[in-house]
Amino acid sequence: MAATIIDSKIFGDIFSDARMREVWSDENRTAKYLDIERALAKVQGELGIIPKAAADEIVKACDIARIDWVKLKAKTEAIGYPIIAVVNQINANCRDGLGEYCHWGATTQDITDTATVLQIREGLALVEADLAELSASIAALAKKHRDTPIIGRSNLQQATPITFGYKMASILAGIERHRERLAQLKPRVLVGEFGGASGTLSSLEKGAMETQAGLMKELGLGQPLISWHTVRDNIAEVGAFLGLVGGSLGKIATDVKLMMQTEVAEVFEPFAPGRGSSSTMPQKRNPISCLYIHANISVVRQHAAALMDAMVADHERSTGPWEIEWVVLPEIFCLISGALKQARFVLAGLEVDAVQMRRNIDLTHGLVMSEAVMMGLGPYIGREYAHDLVYDLCRQALAEKRPLIDILAAHPEIAHHVDRAKLEEFCDPMNNLGQAGVMVDRVLASLS
Amino acid sequence: MAATIIDSKIFGDIFSDARMREVWSDENRTAKYLDIERALAKVQGELGIIPKAAADEIVKACDIARIDWVKLKAKTEAIGYPIIAVVNQINANCRDGLGEYCHWGATTQDITDTATVLQIREGLALVEADLAELSASIAALAKKHRDTPIIGRSNLQQATPITFGYKMASILAGIERHRERLAQLKPRVLVGEFGGASGTLSSLEKGAMETQAGLMKELGLGQPLISWHTVRDNIAEVGAFLGLVGGSLGKIATDVKLMMQTEVAEVFEPFAPGRGSSSTMPQKRNPISCLYIHANISVVRQHAAALMDAMVADHERSTGPWEIEWVVLPEIFCLISGALKQARFVLAGLEVDAVQMRRNIDLTHGLVMSEAVMMGLGPYIGREYAHDLVYDLCRQALAEKRPLIDILAAHPEIAHHVDRAKLEEFCDPMNNLGQAGVMVDRVLASLS
Amino acid sequence: MAATIIDSKIFGDIFSDARMREVWSDENRTAKYLDIERALAKVQGELGIIPKAAADEIVKACDIARIDWVKLKAKTEAIGYPIIAVVNQINANCRDGLGEYCHWGATTQDITDTATVLQIREGLALVEADLAELSASIAALAKKHRDTPIIGRSNLQQATPITFGYKMASILAGIERHRERLAQLKPRVLVGEFGGASGTLSSLEKGAMETQAGLMKELGLGQPLISWHTVRDNIAEVGAFLGLVGGSLGKIATDVKLMMQTEVAEVFEPFAPGRGSSSTMPQKRNPISCLYIHANISVVRQHAAALMDAMVADHERSTGPWEIEWVVLPEIFCLISGALKQARFVLAGLEVDAVQMRRNIDLTHGLVMSEAVMMGLGPYIGREYAHDLVYDLCRQALAEKRPLIDILAAHPEIAHHVDRAKLEEFCDPMNNLGQAGVMVDRVLASLS
Amino acid sequence: MAATIIDSKIFGDIFSDARMREVWSDENRTAKYLDIERALAKVQGELGIIPKAAADEIVKACDIARIDWVKLKAKTEAIGYPIIAVVNQINANCRDGLGEYCHWGATTQDITDTATVLQIREGLALVEADLAELSASIAALAKKHRDTPIIGRSNLQQATPITFGYKMASILAGIERHRERLAQLKPRVLVGEFGGASGTLSSLEKGAMETQAGLMKELGLGQPLISWHTVRDNIAEVGAFLGLVGGSLGKIATDVKLMMQTEVAEVFEPFAPGRGSSSTMPQKRNPISCLYIHANISVVRQHAAALMDAMVADHERSTGPWEIEWVVLPEIFCLISGALKQARFVLAGLEVDAVQMRRNIDLTHGLVMSEAVMMGLGPYIGREYAHDLVYDLCRQALAEKRPLIDILAAHPEIAHHVDRAKLEEFCDPMNNLGQAGVMVDRVLASLS
Repeated sequence: MAATIIDSKIFGDIFSDARMREVWSDENRTAKYLDIERALAKVQGELGIIPKAAADEIVKACDIARIDWVKLKAKTEAIGYPIIAVVNQINANCRDGLGEYCHWGATTQDITDTATVLQIREGLALVEADLAELSASIAALAKKHRDTPIIGRSNLQQATPITFGYKMASILAGIERHRERLAQLKPRVLVGEFGGASGTLSSLEKGAMETQAGLMKELGLGQPLISWHTVRDNIAEVGAFLGLVGGSLGKIATDVKLMMQTEVAEVFEPFAPGRGSSSTMPQKRNPISCLYIHANISVVRQHAAALMDAMVADHERSTGPWEIEWVVLPEIFCLISGALKQARFVLAGLEVDAVQMRRNIDLTHGLVMSEAVMMGLGPYIGREYAHDLVYDLCRQALAEKRPLIDILAAHPEIAHHVDRAKLEEFCDPMNNLGQAGVMVDRVLASLS
Repeated sequence: MAATIIDSKIFGDIFSDARMREVWSDENRTAKYLDIERALAKVQGELGIIPKAAADEIVKACDIARIDWVKLKAKTEAIGYPIIAVVNQINANCRDGLGEYCHWGATTQDITDTATVLQIREGLALVEADLAELSASIAALAKKHRDTPIIGRSNLQQATPITFGYKMASILAGIERHRERLAQLKPRVLVGEFGGASGTLSSLEKGAMETQAGLMKELGLGQPLISWHTVRDNIAEVGAFLGLVGGSLGKIATDVKLMMQTEVAEVFEPFAPGRGSSSTMPQKRNPISCLYIHANISVVRQHAAALMDAMVADHERSTGPWEIEWVVLPEIFCLISGALKQARFVLAGLEVDAVQMRRNIDLTHGLVMSEAVMMGLGPYIGREYAHDLVYDLCRQALAEKRPLIDILAAHPEIAHHVDRAKLEEFCDPMNNLGQAGVMVDRVLASLS
Repeated sequence: MAATIIDSKIFGDIFSDARMREVWSDENRTAKYLDIERALAKVQGELGIIPKAAADEIVKACDIARIDWVKLKAKTEAIGYPIIAVVNQINANCRDGLGEYCHWGATTQDITDTATVLQIREGLALVEADLAELSASIAALAKKHRDTPIIGRSNLQQATPITFGYKMASILAGIERHRERLAQLKPRVLVGEFGGASGTLSSLEKGAMETQAGLMKELGLGQPLISWHTVRDNIAEVGAFLGLVGGSLGKIATDVKLMMQTEVAEVFEPFAPGRGSSSTMPQKRNPISCLYIHANISVVRQHAAALMDAMVADHERSTGPWEIEWVVLPEIFCLISGALKQARFVLAGLEVDAVQMRRNIDLTHGLVMSEAVMMGLGPYIGREYAHDLVYDLCRQALAEKRPLIDILAAHPEIAHHVDRAKLEEFCDPMNNLGQAGVMVDRVLASLS
Repeated sequence: MAATIIDSKIFGDIFSDARMREVWSDENRTAKYLDIERALAKVQGELGIIPKAAADEIVKACDIARIDWVKLKAKTEAIGYPIIAVVNQINANCRDGLGEYCHWGATTQDITDTATVLQIREGLALVEADLAELSASIAALAKKHRDTPIIGRSNLQQATPITFGYKMASILAGIERHRERLAQLKPRVLVGEFGGASGTLSSLEKGAMETQAGLMKELGLGQPLISWHTVRDNIAEVGAFLGLVGGSLGKIATDVKLMMQTEVAEVFEPFAPGRGSSSTMPQKRNPISCLYIHANISVVRQHAAALMDAMVADHERSTGPWEIEWVVLPEIFCLISGALKQARFVLAGLEVDAVQMRRNIDLTHGLVMSEAVMMGLGPYIGREYAHDLVYDLCRQALAEKRPLIDILAAHPEIAHHVDRAKLEEFCDPMNNLGQAGVMVDRVLASLS
């Protein structure tokens, strides 16, 4: 029985991704504790800090299958932290008291912080793969629709024509920046923790820095310059990054749901039988994925702020701020995984109705081409004059609900310079797409 | 396997309360759906809107034990919402197609919104009980320590003496205001939803308002003036309320953890063997509950903001904003339940060290009594002059690290007017507690 | 030279309201300090706590025109708080050192908190008036368009017809709840502060509670049960309330801007020459006010969360949390004032195009009436069968892009039971508005 | 008259920095508009896109001294945006209508976005300088106090000794990571905008990309791959970065204010006459700067979330999300500038009381050295046995309130192995600082 939407047996796979939930599960977190204790014993055995026999025994005893979850829960509740409880169980699995050498020189937060970093590494790997997949889908749309005209919209008003490929490519550029950010933050974030009670490793008489270096090498993590038990910019940076990714997914969802409106009908989430339909309203095609994206990322950005609050840590081991991360990290990763999953689904199979896009361009009977007409007439009658004239004729077209082309063609002064064929050329969206294609090409060329 | 800390099998009972998780569980939510469909059929049967036989059959078929969870998950994922899936299962449990009359005139959101309100009612009842218990514990502390002196602290500096009872009573006044807020918001929030596709009940040819009235009566909820599918101030108000409660719990946790500092040591979380202690640092007494409170309420206030975001809903059924509530409501209730649980534990068994409180008052060797000395000397040497003189003597006491009383008693001008016994009277914290007791009495007298 | 958008000499009146900025100005805040010191002296003079001559002199000296702002700034920066600086100036304005009796028994935060409450009172009065005006505008729209059909939209898809009056009335119901909330919170919030250094009024040997009672009476504020220097639920409640109001304004802005889309064009912000138009795109009619509302309330809800953070105050005078309020309160009030101003403008002059609303209902050539058709055919051919048949015919209409009515009328089985005239009756939105009018009436009747 | 604390004539210089306010002032923003229009005309004149004479004239006319602010305000309010109003004024300053070539091919958002980026560049330069100064101050403290012992605190309980230099170095490592982040984000963020109405530069018949390239070169900004009018990860990234910086400052403020507590008294904000003192409580030394830091960064993190909300932009020019940036960017920069200013002040002149630090280590009469004693006795009596024995003796010391050393020395079994001199060696904090110095050296060596 789960209370959260993430762990819900009904909604869990809608609002989050199963692989991401696995990363943040009790089982995986505890497995990480064991990985770290095992690596620590191995390294300290090799360095001669603990007896080789103890190291061997501990390495064997670090077995997730032997964890007694009921005991672990009870002891965690009694103490407030799970590590002593885990170490006790490892210890109990070792012969001849050799388990006493387990956790040698470590403090609770060394293990939990390093476990969190290992979970973050797995979580970011999933995000990275999702971003790559998303990038590929958007790139494919940008390429395919490089020259498919769609009306550009500003302030939810039809403005001037662009291409659907341009629309996709501008979003793609942002996704690519996220991939760059991710590459840059990893060396800062994927750094382990091993400092002992107050972080100075006073718990080890000898081999302290060697143990730290060896442990991090064993785990494939960076070695910290200094302990960071209460210096949490690395963790908060992960949250900020996911918050930024969420913003980009929100932009995608917004555009798709606006384009799916009955009155617009230009693109659609991929069809799946029953999905987004109504038993009594057959005309509906609901943007199901978009709404989950919208919801998840609204919470993700609040979680990003909460992780910044977690940075306000006191002294050498904080009194509450740290636990903010315990609440937030699993959720922010799971919620972003859900949003990414839905976004991948939408963009991998997006239905694009180029005919309807063109129909919408024509909805205003040419008014959206007025800028192009002004520019076209400029060389003949002067730009400023052209502007004023066309502006007036547009208002006339609006008032009389007549196509602009008809009014233009009927205007004696204009007719004097250009014929209807020429005017139609001016009014053809395909002739007024500016650098849309060039910009698409620039973005596609930048892909790694 | 749970990913969130709330549903964690290890940490779940630390960060949240089991009864609250039960309220927001898949099982309870689905049970509420059935309660509503059952009540709807019953009412519509009585009103003659659906056949009596159908009503009877549906009432029987609304049985949580017969829910096929696997099917429910699959169909919910296919459609995006769970209600049709539940109605299908009810229907399948009815003989002779009578189940076709189930969900008559209702729309998905009617059922989910009303279920949410029923869950909120249960959640608020738990919060209400917790606040009552908390109030009683704080009142007991305020009463018992009405006259126990403790130093008042301003900007984390010792200021002037107060009583511990006064400290508790000022917090208690805030808790009482929360109880008032809760009483006031209930009639606004505990209102059901029944409006059909676009909220106008066009789905029912007759008996529409009667069905709505009857359904709400059956469920013990208020009848809405008008549908509120996308007017969500009621839901956001619940979040805001819980955010305010969280703030008060945060204040309590802050004070307790500051008073538990090794250097202060005035109060302690209740002792439990092993709890908050360290295997290598026997001197420690960690404020375990306080740190969970701190963490939970940091997230609660962000969730309160997310619920305000959920108010920005489009048209008659929103496209994403609504689902923010699905994510946030279970969590905000569960996290506040965890914070309330920890706060109740702390305050019900708080260990108060009155001797140490007094020792801390004396830590500055009388400097914290300087205001009282100034006031005491006023009648003899003039208030302004007394101020300047005492201020100078205080600086001397600080510089020479001598008790203020010694310096005062040795000062000829002062000695001329008052003897050491009188000065000691001025310096006695018990003589300088102002209206602390009166204010405690005012708060206690206001308790309902 | 201002840095913030609120105080910007260019944008200030767009993003905020001048009267609200006045409430939170340096001048008004300082004037409130003087009001309080004046009232305190007056009351203490009457109670005989300070000499009558001193009281008279202080009352005269509390004159905003005599404030030396440069000195006030310098001394505030030196000390960290403004009150001593103000009291010094009052004092300097008094003859014969009578000013020494100014601020008698008070502490800095007594004056600043009470001033804040006085500012909140003025700010809430503006909000209250705005809500009343907004309510009247929406009520007028609800009344006028009680029976004006518009398509209801669910998930941004056309669903079933409603009325524009119903749409307005559902929003109105939320505004009315805000007015109720405001009335309920005032007695909790409009309470002054007067407690001295640690809140116990130990600073006054006699007449402490009488002074407090008299001061609050003089200022027209409630008397606190106990000091609340670090118990700030009252302040945070104001923020939460404004956050909720913001959510409602966001809903309005969302609907208006969606309805203003070129492809929808059902309502428009009031026309003002130049406003929302483009020099090169004459077809545009930008939703200017709506976008300011959207922006402001996004920040307002975050500010509401920050005020909850400000509740986490330490001991008797907090070390940072209190100053969060100093940053946030002026902004949250000013931003909500800007959003309210824009919302009032939009709703007072909203242009409603009922013809276009009807045109949009017809956009799907009758598909949005399918629910009504199913219900209409039910009595003749059975409800379930009618559902399946109509659903199939709707898909046919979609595929063939033919009006539903034509397909219905041509269907032999249907034709057997009902003629085209009857079918047109089923398809008439006016016949399928359910309880829209009744619900509008319920809301309008509830208005105070 | 200003309403916000940032622009307050009393508090402005406390909560923000004057240079940062200047960056975000109306004057500087408008000057940036002129810089861009000037650069655009210059580049287009050189490229032959507009007449050379027009370019020359426009370059001259872009003069901030000639801006009519009253007109600018009026027209901005009428239109909703300031750019047309500015262009009109430039135009009016040009002879012979040459000003018509001003703003050629640009759209309002091209100018405002690019101006924002120029302001961000100036703002980030101030932040960068502040971080460098802060880093130098902390490095100096780390170096000077590399070996100054202070008690490490975990969960606000005394734990084991560290050095004050270690404490500073761990914070320093985080500041250095911020400097790395800043260097990495600049190439992504310091990119201009020039795309025309819908971003495709359809507004320029020829030389579009050349104009864009030239303009960016002229302004010293990066050229975008594609327009980013509604792809705002760059702007939100700046907010996230400042939010992270705020978190670090919050950690500093937290530690300093905790160490300034009367009962701890280890460090102090720099002394300035009157600052942080009380007229009636001479013992007080308030952490003034720390509380402003605490307050500012609480709001900064909320603003970071608001900027993520601003990413959820619609289509080619967003309807509200963009304006969130207008509200938030000036404030987040100004508030962080205030926090940085206060933090620089605190750390540049921090008073460190090493004697008191040592006194606090000794407060528990040796209990905080128990870990060291256990380790010291290990080789003689076995580690596990040593642990149990010392743990028991610690409890005895606590119960009897006797120094641990006395109890240890009196214990026959211990005395059998080591004498009191040896025990005192074990108990000497200087012998138990672990790798504190090594870690300090590692951080200092990493400084660029």
